[in-house]
Amino acid sequence: MGKNVMVGQSGGPTSVINSSLAGVYEASRARGAEHVYGMLHGVEGLLQGKYVDLSQKFKTGLEIELLKRTPSSYLGSCRYKLPDWREDEEPYKKLMALLEELDVGYLMYIGGNDSMDTIGKLADYGEHVCSDIRFMGVPKTIDNDLMITDHTPGYGSAAKYISVVMKEIIRDATVYGSKYVTIVEIMGRNAGWLTAAAALARGEDCEGVDMICLPEVPFHVDRFIEKVRVMQEKKPSIVIAVSEGVKLEDGRYVCELSDDPRRVDAFGHKNLTGTARYLAGQVERHLDTKTRSIELSTLQRCASHLTSRTDITEAYQVGGAAAQAAFHGHTGEMVALRRVSNKPYQCVTELHPISEVANLEKKVPLDWVNENFTDMLPAFLNYARPLIQAELTPIYIEGQPYHIYCPEA
Amino acid sequence: MGKNVMVGQSGGPTSVINSSLAGVYEASRARGAEHVYGMLHGVEGLLQGKYVDLSQKFKTGLEIELLKRTPSSYLGSCRYKLPDWREDEEPYKKLMALLEELDVGYLMYIGGNDSMDTIGKLADYGEHVCSDIRFMGVPKTIDNDLMITDHTPGYGSAAKYISVVMKEIIRDATVYGSKYVTIVEIMGRNAGWLTAAAALARGEDCEGVDMICLPEVPFHVDRFIEKVRVMQEKKPSIVIAVSEGVKLEDGRYVCELSDDPRRVDAFGHKNLTGTARYLAGQVERHLDTKTRSIELSTLQRCASHLTSRTDITEAYQVGGAAAQAAFHGHTGEMVALRRVSNKPYQCVTELHPISEVANLEKKVPLDWVNENFTDMLPAFLNYARPLIQAELTPIYIEGQPYHIYCPEA
Repeated sequence: MGKNVMVGQSGGPTSVINSSLAGVYEASRARGAEHVYGMLHGVEGLLQGKYVDLSQKFKTGLEIELLKRTPSSYLGSCRYKLPDWREDEEPYKKLMALLEELDVGYLMYIGGNDSMDTIGKLADYGEHVCSDIRFMGVPKTIDNDLMITDHTPGYGSAAKYISVVMKEIIRDATVYGSKYVTIVEIMGRNAGWLTAAAALARGEDCEGVDMICLPEVPFHVDRFIEKVRVMQEKKPSIVIAVSEGVKLEDGRYVCELSDDPRRVDAFGHKNLTGTARYLAGQVERHLDTKTRSIELSTLQRCASHLTSRTDITEAYQVGGAAAQAAFHGHTGEMVALRRVSNKPYQCVTELHPISEVANLEKKVPLDWVNENFTDMLPAFLNYARPLIQAELTPIYIEGQPYHIYCPEA
Repeated sequence: MGKNVMVGQSGGPTSVINSSLAGVYEASRARGAEHVYGMLHGVEGLLQGKYVDLSQKFKTGLEIELLKRTPSSYLGSCRYKLPDWREDEEPYKKLMALLEELDVGYLMYIGGNDSMDTIGKLADYGEHVCSDIRFMGVPKTIDNDLMITDHTPGYGSAAKYISVVMKEIIRDATVYGSKYVTIVEIMGRNAGWLTAAAALARGEDCEGVDMICLPEVPFHVDRFIEKVRVMQEKKPSIVIAVSEGVKLEDGRYVCELSDDPRRVDAFGHKNLTGTARYLAGQVERHLDTKTRSIELSTLQRCASHLTSRTDITEAYQVGGAAAQAAFHGHTGEMVALRRVSNKPYQCVTELHPISEVANLEKKVPLDWVNENFTDMLPAFLNYARPLIQAELTPIYIEGQPYHIYCPEA
């Protein structure tokens, strides 16, 4: 009898993280794992003894299909950082005892930077105590900011969502033919991958967005307003994509200029929303135009009704590849995607040591941005367009996409 | 040779108003109209001599299919109110001269309350000058606030969008298992039809929203916070749908309580956004919880990637029925939908004098709301659910829905 599997989801939800869970589950079962356990709310929940037996949850192929089409993290998530085991061994002992009790031989963790830090520490500790348990990382983040991998599962669907709704917003904003500035705020604290995806809206059937403001480029409020003024001399309706993370040259976030008191959340993270609203206010104050600010908010990360099939498929593949690698004895590694061809688009999975990935951040290369820092160059479009290709239709019941969810999470 | 047709779109855009344009166009051509002219930016544009010949634009069936799948108003829109012709005859003379010059026999105007006012005045004036031109109204508004008609084309798709994204937001908001209050702001200045649609999210696969706040029900900030506090004792993640138009008992909009300076727009309309943000701030101030406010903004009216096929079909039908009625000699009337059966759902079109519709507002009946004014009763669900049924898949090209647009608009 083969060993059992433990799998967890961590960090911000995406619309395809459950597809990776499906990949881990099916690859593990195919390799003889009798039980595939799912930790509830990641390592944090597991430390409290919270887990479910997924082999009891997924009885039919239909449940796997629904899982692929259900947004957010089926197992719940956490934002928990393991301590250094040399300083505090307690949580490690607790986890290893539980894993041994459940006869777990393989642990897969699906997440971003912080989650890869967790996998790295667990693998490191496992080696220290000569454990046979294999620990593998499965990449996931809409932010696309992981090193090594060509892109991260989750990004393609968020990029597709953003570019599709930008097209719709552009059509909506031009309807009165009057002066109108629409500023759309897009997620991404330090990396502008998602904001850059707004460039994909342009095509033979759409004028595209008029300006893109990435967090990689220092932001000047005065110059921004001047650019809008000049653009509006030629074209009444201006649509701008701005990252929530745009910063002034002195390092302050633009949204910190507003007087919204809700700037710091319960965890002490600066709450970055409000950038578009602040800028719309400034534009209205200085220029004779109507404005609207739109925050795509969590819609951009949970819109499973509008995913990229390429992304869903790759999310499934990296999950499966992680399980395969664990069963082959790998540990302390993350599955990455490597693009072997762009036309036709083709990616393969490969393995990299966690240390090459954890706690690092990949930003948008500035040579993919035009010289005015207002638009993306073809290099970016060629990179991103394959990632938004094709669709996976939801299973609609009574007019609504049907989901599967885990009442225990 | 038959007379020509003039058609216009007016008021706020929707994701199906172009389907009504397609209906007017095809029914008119089928009845022998050689030219179907489209006024650009409604009556306001037509007064400036702006129109296009749609018979030159739509050469193939594919263009009609793309039109049905393109959000916002293909011909552009306006918010223009015709004066009383007894006080100012000038614009009427100008319009009639242009229509006669183009040999127009039938004019169809697609819009909401204000647009029906326009049609009523034109028909009235037409009768006064013994014109043969027939004027017909085609209903359209996501707000669903037109009298007489069972519902308005545009509402079903917006309701579907709202209920689908509420399901996705609910999944996203529960992911950390921690205390979290999400307040989603939905359009609707005086009528709560759109906010009520959030109730459709509940089902065997979704817990549903926890509270619905309609503009028809006087709002008490303190009681609202107390309700949230009580709910959160049982359930950490609370998701609330709130209308942008909720008002205090003294008639002030809740959003007026915030100190956002952008309260009044360029047209003097009160800008109602900010209700959810204000309430989230109050909840955070009084309760120990993290919050998030989400404005669905224009996404709820232009998401043609997620329409109701029932709605698209009916929008097409009311357009066609208006042209048919005009060709049969009707004038000064609006096409309405009458539900002849609910299970199975079936609606027929009928005609009503504009005077029964223009400048009136239909609100959500309070006997469709529960006694705590926090949820919708089955009577509403039975009314609304048929309207969100079935889908019309976008025509995806390179990963994005393909649109058709009118460069002149």
